Amino acid sequence: MLLTDLRDHPVFGFADGCLRGIGQVVFQNNALTGAIILAALFVNSPIYGTIAIFGVVVSTATALFLQADKGLVRDGLFGFNGALVALALIAFTSEDFHYGAVPSVYLVVYIAFAAAMTTIVFSSLAALLGPVKVAPLTMPFVLVGWLFLFAVLKFHNIDAGPLAKPVSPSQYDPDFHYSLSTWYRGIGNAIGQIFFQDNWISGYLILFGIAVNSRISALMALVGANVAALVAVIYGAPEGAISDGLFGYNAALTAIALGGFFLVITLPAALYTLFGIVVSTWLWASVAIFLEPIGMPVLTSTFVIVTWLMLIGVGGFKALVPVPPDKAVTAEVNRRRYLETTPES
Amino acid sequence: MLLTDLRDHPVFGFADGCLRGIGQVVFQNNALTGAIILAALFVNSPIYGTIAIFGVVVSTATALFLQADKGLVRDGLFGFNGALVALALIAFTSEDFHYGAVPSVYLVVYIAFAAAMTTIVFSSLAALLGPVKVAPLTMPFVLVGWLFLFAVLKFHNIDAGPLAKPVSPSQYDPDFHYSLSTWYRGIGNAIGQIFFQDNWISGYLILFGIAVNSRISALMALVGANVAALVAVIYGAPEGAISDGLFGYNAALTAIALGGFFLVITLPAALYTLFGIVVSTWLWASVAIFLEPIGMPVLTSTFVIVTWLMLIGVGGFKALVPVPPDKAVTAEVNRRRYLETTPES
Amino acid sequence: MLLTDLRDHPVFGFADGCLRGIGQVVFQNNALTGAIILAALFVNSPIYGTIAIFGVVVSTATALFLQADKGLVRDGLFGFNGALVALALIAFTSEDFHYGAVPSVYLVVYIAFAAAMTTIVFSSLAALLGPVKVAPLTMPFVLVGWLFLFAVLKFHNIDAGPLAKPVSPSQYDPDFHYSLSTWYRGIGNAIGQIFFQDNWISGYLILFGIAVNSRISALMALVGANVAALVAVIYGAPEGAISDGLFGYNAALTAIALGGFFLVITLPAALYTLFGIVVSTWLWASVAIFLEPIGMPVLTSTFVIVTWLMLIGVGGFKALVPVPPDKAVTAEVNRRRYLETTPES
Repeated sequence: MLLTDLRDHPVFGFADGCLRGIGQVVFQNNALTGAIILAALFVNSPIYGTIAIFGVVVSTATALFLQADKGLVRDGLFGFNGALVALALIAFTSEDFHYGAVPSVYLVVYIAFAAAMTTIVFSSLAALLGPVKVAPLTMPFVLVGWLFLFAVLKFHNIDAGPLAKPVSPSQYDPDFHYSLSTWYRGIGNAIGQIFFQDNWISGYLILFGIAVNSRISALMALVGANVAALVAVIYGAPEGAISDGLFGYNAALTAIALGGFFLVITLPAALYTLFGIVVSTWLWASVAIFLEPIGMPVLTSTFVIVTWLMLIGVGGFKALVPVPPDKAVTAEVNRRRYLETTPES
Repeated sequence: MLLTDLRDHPVFGFADGCLRGIGQVVFQNNALTGAIILAALFVNSPIYGTIAIFGVVVSTATALFLQADKGLVRDGLFGFNGALVALALIAFTSEDFHYGAVPSVYLVVYIAFAAAMTTIVFSSLAALLGPVKVAPLTMPFVLVGWLFLFAVLKFHNIDAGPLAKPVSPSQYDPDFHYSLSTWYRGIGNAIGQIFFQDNWISGYLILFGIAVNSRISALMALVGANVAALVAVIYGAPEGAISDGLFGYNAALTAIALGGFFLVITLPAALYTLFGIVVSTWLWASVAIFLEPIGMPVLTSTFVIVTWLMLIGVGGFKALVPVPPDKAVTAEVNRRRYLETTPES
Repeated sequence: MLLTDLRDHPVFGFADGCLRGIGQVVFQNNALTGAIILAALFVNSPIYGTIAIFGVVVSTATALFLQADKGLVRDGLFGFNGALVALALIAFTSEDFHYGAVPSVYLVVYIAFAAAMTTIVFSSLAALLGPVKVAPLTMPFVLVGWLFLFAVLKFHNIDAGPLAKPVSPSQYDPDFHYSLSTWYRGIGNAIGQIFFQDNWISGYLILFGIAVNSRISALMALVGANVAALVAVIYGAPEGAISDGLFGYNAALTAIALGGFFLVITLPAALYTLFGIVVSTWLWASVAIFLEPIGMPVLTSTFVIVTWLMLIGVGGFKALVPVPPDKAVTAEVNRRRYLETTPES
C-alpha cells in the first residue's frame, strides 16, 4: 500500500521507474534489482554508474514528455535501452574500456540524443512487433548504438579513441591455454558484459540482483553463461574471448528470455532454451565477423536476433507455451499462472 | 473545373501525374511544383532534366500497365522513386557527377528496368507498412538504387567510371576552413542534392518550387538544411561535406516530412522535428561510414530510416498528432483540418 | 487410397514428407520429384546426397518434436530449408566444392543445429509474412546459412578451408570467350547450383524431376536459366560465371515462383515473370558484390529478395492474379482453378 503510494509520487515514482529500467535490461521489473545492479556498476567504475543513471533518466523523461503509456513508463520499459546506449557510447569512445572516461560536453549532448532516440525506437518496434506478440527486447539500444557509434568516429569534436577493446574472436591470441580462471572469470564477465562491465565481481553482483527478483532467471543466466563457455571450449574458441565473457553475455540473455520469461518452463521449453543458448554462442562469433570490416561491436544483437527468431513463430509449435510480453511477470509467476489455468497436466 | 477535366484526359492526365511525381520527391502533390523542379534540373544539366522525365514516365507507365490504383497514379505516388533512381544511376556512373553523361543504350534499358522496379517495390512497401500507417517514402528508390548500382560495376557493357564524387565525410580534407560561402552554397546544395544536383542555384529554385505549394514545407526545408549545417560545424565536420550539402539533404527531407506533413504542427511536434533534423545530420555520417567499404552512396536512406523510426511508433505518444499518409495534403491543410475537428485547444 | 494410407504410416509418412521436402526446394510437393532430385545429387557426389537426406530429416523431425502443423510437415515445408543449409555448410567448408568432403563430428553436430534452426525460422517468417500472404521461400536457409557460415570460420575444431569456389563475378577471368558449352553447361549448372551441384548432368536430372510434377515449372526453370544467360552475355558478364550457372540459379527459381506457382499464368503475369528473371540476373551480381568484403556466398538470397518484392505488393496490381501460399498447388492446377471460378475471360 505504502509502496504503491510512493509509485504515484512524481519524484519517487520517477526514481522507481528508472531503477526498474535498469532491472529491465535483464527482464527484472524490480527497483531493488535495479539498485543492486547500479551498485555493481559503481563498484567497477563510478563513471559507468553515473552514465547509466543519466541514460535511464533521459530516456524515461523523454517518454514522459511525449506522453507515452504511463504503465509502460512506470515499469521501466522506456528506460533500459537508454541506460545501455549511454554505457555503450562511453565504453567504445574511452581509451580505457575497463574504467571508461569522463565524456566531453559534446559527447554528453550526443548521448542524451541517443538515449532519447531509444525511447522513440522502442515505440516503433513495439508497434511493428505487436501483431506477432514479441517484445522489442534490446533492439532499440542495438540499432541506436550502431547508428550513433558509426557517426562518432567522424566528428572532430568527439575525441573517439580507437576501439580499444577486441570485439571479435579473431583479435585474440589463439595459442593461449584454458585454465580454471578462464571459467570463473568468464562466467562473471559474461554477466558483467551485459552492462559493458569488464569486471567479474560486478558480474556476480548483478547475478545477485537478478536473484532478488527471480531465482529462476538468475539460474538461467548462470546456465546460459556456463553452456556458452562449454560450447566455446569444445569448438576451440580463443581463451581470451571466453575469459572476457564475450561468448556468454548474449547466451545468458537468451537463457533468461526463453527460460521462463517469454515461455512457460516445461521440458520442451527447457530443451528449446538450451538450443537457443548454443545457437547464441555460435552466432555471437558470426555477427562479430560480419561487423569486423566496419569495426563495430556486436552489442546484444545476437541475443535479439536469436530470441526474436525463436519466439516470433512459436505460435506454430504446440509443444511450447508462449507468454505475451504484456503478461510476462517473472518466470515463477508465469509458470504458476499457467498451472492454475490448465486443469491437469 | 477545367483543370479537373484536364486530369481526366489520357495524355494531359498522364503528364499531370508525372509532374506531380517530380513534386512528390519533396512531398508536394502539385504539377507546378514539379515543373519548377524540372526547370531547376535543366538549369544545371539538360541530361539530368531529361533522365528525370524518363524515370518518372517509365515508373508511372508501369503502374498504369499493372492497373495500380488510379488515385495513387494521378497523385504521382508511383513516379517519384522512378525519377530519383534514374537520376542516381546517371549521377554515379558518369565521370562528371556535376553534369552527368549521356547514357549508352545498355544503361538506358537498365534504368528503365530500375524505374519500373521502384513501382513494384513501392506497392510492396505500402502493403508492409499499411498496418502502421506510414508511407514508403523514398525507400523504393534507395533499395532499387543500391541493388542496381552494385551490379552496374560488374558488367563490361555499362561503362561505369569510378564513383567520382566523395560519398563520405572521410574523403574530404579536414583542414579546410569554414567561410560564408560554406553556408549559402551549403544550404542551396543541400536542397539540390535531394535531386543529385551539385548546384546551389538549382537548390534555391527547387525551394521556390516547394514554396509554390506549401510555405511551411519550404520553411522546413530551409530550417532542416540550416540546422544540419550548424550541427555539422559545432561537431567539427569537414568543410567540403558541408559546402556540398551532404549533411543537409537528408535533414531537409526529414524536416519537411515531420514538420507538418505527417505530424500536425504543434509545439511538441516542432521540437520532435528539430530532434529529427539533428539526428538525421549525425546519422548521415553514420550510414556513409557503414557503406564506405562497399563504396555505395547514402542516397536518402538516412532520411527514410530516421523518419520511419520517428513515425511508426508515434501512435504511442499522446503529445503528437499523426496524419495518416492517405490523409496528408499539405502542412497548412493538415493543421487547419486538425483545428476544425478539435473543439478547443 | 493406398498412397494416402501410406502417408498416415509413421515411418513411410515421414519418409514421404522428407522426399517432398527435397522437392519443395523447387516448389514441387511430390515425393517422386524429391527422389529423382536426390538421385541427381548422388550421381554427382554421394556426400552431397547423404547430407541432403540428413538435413531434411533433422529439420522435419524438429518440426514433429515441436508439434508443428501436421499438414505443413507432411507437405515437406519444414524440410527443404534444412536440406539446403546442410548442403551449403558442406559445400563452403570443403576444399573441393565440386565433390564435397566428409564432415567431422563437430561439423555434423553444427549442421544438425543449423537444420533444426531453419525449422524455427520458417515458422517465424511464416508468422511475419502471414498478413501479406507471401511464403518464406528459402529465406530460412539463406539467413541460417549466412549466420552459421560466418561463425564456422572462427572455430578451430571445424576445419574450414578457404572458400574454394568463386562466389562473385569479379573473381573470374574477364577475357575468356563464350562458346557453345558456355550455354548448355551453363543452363544445366544453373539448375544444379540450386542444390550446390556444380554438375550440369545433375542439373538436367533435376529438371526432369521437376517435369514429373509440373511441365510448366520445368519450362519456367529452363526459360529462367536461358534468359539469365542471354542477359549476362548481352551485358558482358564473365564467361566463367555464366558457364558455372551462377547468373542463372536465382533467375530459374524466380521463374518457377512467379511463372504459375504464386501468380496465375496470364499474359501480364508472363511479362512480369520475364521482368523478374532479368532483374534476378542483374541483382545476383549486385548481392555478390555487396557480400564480397565479408567473403560470403549469395546463396538464393537474390531470388528471395526479388520474388518477395514482386509478390508482397501484388494485391495492388489488378492486372495480376496472385495465388496465396496455402492455395498454391502446381502452375497447372492454379490456372485450371482460376479459369473455373472466373466465368468468362
